[in-house]
Amino acid sequence: MNQDNRSADITNFVTHLECSKTGEALPAGTVQNLSPAGAPILVRYDLDAVAGELTKEKLASRPADLWRYRELLPVASATNIVSLGEDMTPLVALDNSLGSNVIVKDEGRLPTGSFKARGLVMAVSMAKELGLKRLAMPTNGNAGAAMAAYARRAGMEAFVFCPDDTPEVNVREIALQGGKVWRVNGLINDCGKIVADGEAEMGWFNLSTLKEPYRIEGKKTMGLELVEQLGWEMPDVIFYPTGGGTGLIGMWKAFDELEAIGFIGSRRPRMVAVQATGCAPIVDAWEKGLDHAPLWENASTVAAGIRVPVAIGDFLILQAVRESGGFAIAVEDEAIIAAQQRIGQEDGLLLCPEGAATAAAYLKALEDGLIGKSDRAVLFNCGNGLKYPMPAADAALDRHQPIDWSAIASA
Amino acid sequence: MNQDNRSADITNFVTHLECSKTGEALPAGTVQNLSPAGAPILVRYDLDAVAGELTKEKLASRPADLWRYRELLPVASATNIVSLGEDMTPLVALDNSLGSNVIVKDEGRLPTGSFKARGLVMAVSMAKELGLKRLAMPTNGNAGAAMAAYARRAGMEAFVFCPDDTPEVNVREIALQGGKVWRVNGLINDCGKIVADGEAEMGWFNLSTLKEPYRIEGKKTMGLELVEQLGWEMPDVIFYPTGGGTGLIGMWKAFDELEAIGFIGSRRPRMVAVQATGCAPIVDAWEKGLDHAPLWENASTVAAGIRVPVAIGDFLILQAVRESGGFAIAVEDEAIIAAQQRIGQEDGLLLCPEGAATAAAYLKALEDGLIGKSDRAVLFNCGNGLKYPMPAADAALDRHQPIDWSAIASA
Ligand SMILES: Cc1ncc(COP(=O)(O)O)c(C=O)c1O
Ligand SMILES: Cc1ncc(COP(=O)(O)O)c(C=O)c1O
Repeated sequence: MNQDNRSADITNFVTHLECSKTGEALPAGTVQNLSPAGAPILVRYDLDAVAGELTKEKLASRPADLWRYRELLPVASATNIVSLGEDMTPLVALDNSLGSNVIVKDEGRLPTGSFKARGLVMAVSMAKELGLKRLAMPTNGNAGAAMAAYARRAGMEAFVFCPDDTPEVNVREIALQGGKVWRVNGLINDCGKIVADGEAEMGWFNLSTLKEPYRIEGKKTMGLELVEQLGWEMPDVIFYPTGGGTGLIGMWKAFDELEAIGFIGSRRPRMVAVQATGCAPIVDAWEKGLDHAPLWENASTVAAGIRVPVAIGDFLILQAVRESGGFAIAVEDEAIIAAQQRIGQEDGLLLCPEGAATAAAYLKALEDGLIGKSDRAVLFNCGNGLKYPMPAADAALDRHQPIDWSAIASA
Repeated sequence: MNQDNRSADITNFVTHLECSKTGEALPAGTVQNLSPAGAPILVRYDLDAVAGELTKEKLASRPADLWRYRELLPVASATNIVSLGEDMTPLVALDNSLGSNVIVKDEGRLPTGSFKARGLVMAVSMAKELGLKRLAMPTNGNAGAAMAAYARRAGMEAFVFCPDDTPEVNVREIALQGGKVWRVNGLINDCGKIVADGEAEMGWFNLSTLKEPYRIEGKKTMGLELVEQLGWEMPDVIFYPTGGGTGLIGMWKAFDELEAIGFIGSRRPRMVAVQATGCAPIVDAWEKGLDHAPLWENASTVAAGIRVPVAIGDFLILQAVRESGGFAIAVEDEAIIAAQQRIGQEDGLLLCPEGAATAAAYLKALEDGLIGKSDRAVLFNCGNGLKYPMPAADAALDRHQPIDWSAIASA
């Protein structure tokens, strides 16, 4: 293991920012939310220069955290990196339950227990680089927890708004990590409105998904890591639990950048957007062949993280799914719970409901003939299963009574 | 990054097993619980041969998981390794709260969210190697969760007994990961009695802490990793939350093995056994200069993992603490909670109560002049803070009302 990725002196290759809809160029190093056209902004790099600088061997010699990809990341100065230890996450094959062709990327291992850490460590580091001091966001829980942790680490204020039925553990971790948190009687889009309304009054920076340019750059590292871990080979299909869709869009961007620097060829995995039947705007738009997904009314699912009725990056999600030859698929809450239990019981791996949704989607896609048994599939377990341990049977025992071993044996 | 540590073909260097009390040798490759003298059994290696084989450079080129130390681990055949991705855990300096000389080793990142995964992945892999099929253990929660996960992964049965007031999240994760779990109206030693009593009736193998030889070999990897991550330098002092004490004993063993293979010199960190004032048998024995620690009556603390009234390895803990020039120290529950909140608020790092106990002990030791500000200290955050998110203040907001921004600003 060589020097620390975070303190290493590395050239920054960002050339400019770009509107994802019109292609309009915007200057790097400026504070940005949406583009003038009201669309998400993407970060662009001088990839030819990166190609001349970065090699697979160099990467392999660096410590195993997401900062190993510094040449493809936006933070210019090492001193602005705000870290809680963003180590690479492991791949775990589901040998016993779904078979060894099915690999879970276990994102629950990240700081604050979810893949939201990837996006937020980048957005908060950039907020530091740009001199921001007060951050705000709407959240279904995990993103707010990650923002609070990194903001406090950077000495900034964090204002977080979540639906009032957000899992208790999320609300508590946000508060314990120094975030100021409000429960709102609405869904994440209602929270988003409060954050937007407060910009003028409160002078905070709006860190909503895809409403600033850098969370997607952090989420992109899922794609970089995955492909490097697979020896620069592509899996056949990726199942991604889709709320705002930042991770799916980010991975798609990562693959293009890897091809541009010559690390991979033109082959791509099929990208599958997984949603719950109780909140499936992207699936609906995909089935109807639309470019945008209208707001889903009365959204409801046990998988709180993907209860996102409307996504500003809807067209980017749909574009990646289509270009990749993938599909969008919705699963019932019952199937999510059954998948969580099956994989826990058979492989000892406790998935979060959103991760379990990808497993349920894998099974459904197999049944529907959308994929085959021999396809190498990657499922994203985007959060730590401990955040949402669903009710589970357990037995009682009174040690003062004579113990009935036969009852224990047959439990 | 080179080949997979787990599938690599590596010589096994185990020579024999050894009673930790009498030094009696026992044959490797046999099923063992306590030694004939009733003491924990340690694994011994041909360290001269390891020294001839292993180099720091070889280690550095291997993937970042605990299997990189295969030459110093007991599993002979790669096919017996049962894994859920035991990646190395990060070091996070507490820059804002306790200062950059204080480093947390964040063990909550491991499978099943605690350092118990290290011990259990080794014990279950060895159980597989030895042909065992049914495992049982008493637990305060985390060890049982790790055993259940790895046992199911290996296709074995797991019977788990925990105190009836074990945190709900632990009971649920055990059940969700396929363990058969009972709540017992007693403490961990009462659960231990049930497991011992059931051996004959149930034919299960007793995997209690230090009552089989291999959990300590897994826990030993904390010491190996820590020293490698610090560039083969020793910290000045290590604060370890001490229940059964396997980790403290294991790290002490790791340091001796590293010296024997020439990777480090004779310098050692001071080892500090941290307990809660509501359950402090080791601290009491240390203060009285005893070799063994009598059972602590009416044990009670918020730090469930270290609520261990009696430890079979008491003499080994006390020995390591004394030899290292360290000490044993007890902290109040209030100090544990205060430390958890302070570090969360100021550094964005959510510790588990047991990890927070080490932070409280650090502050107390500093105040008492037992250590100095310039000492480089390592705190073990042994479990994921998400397992026990303590009550936290949070605000409410009704989005249908006009929003009072001044109230939000002053929250
Ligand atoms: C656990 C979990 N899974 C999935 C998602 C959706 O992620 P994305 O916004 O990238 O689609 C979220 C977002 O809140 C989440 O918390
Ligand atoms: C979170 C936590 N911390 C500390 C301990 C104590 O560990 P040891 O038995 O190695 O002393 C435990 C054991 O249950 C635990 O779960």
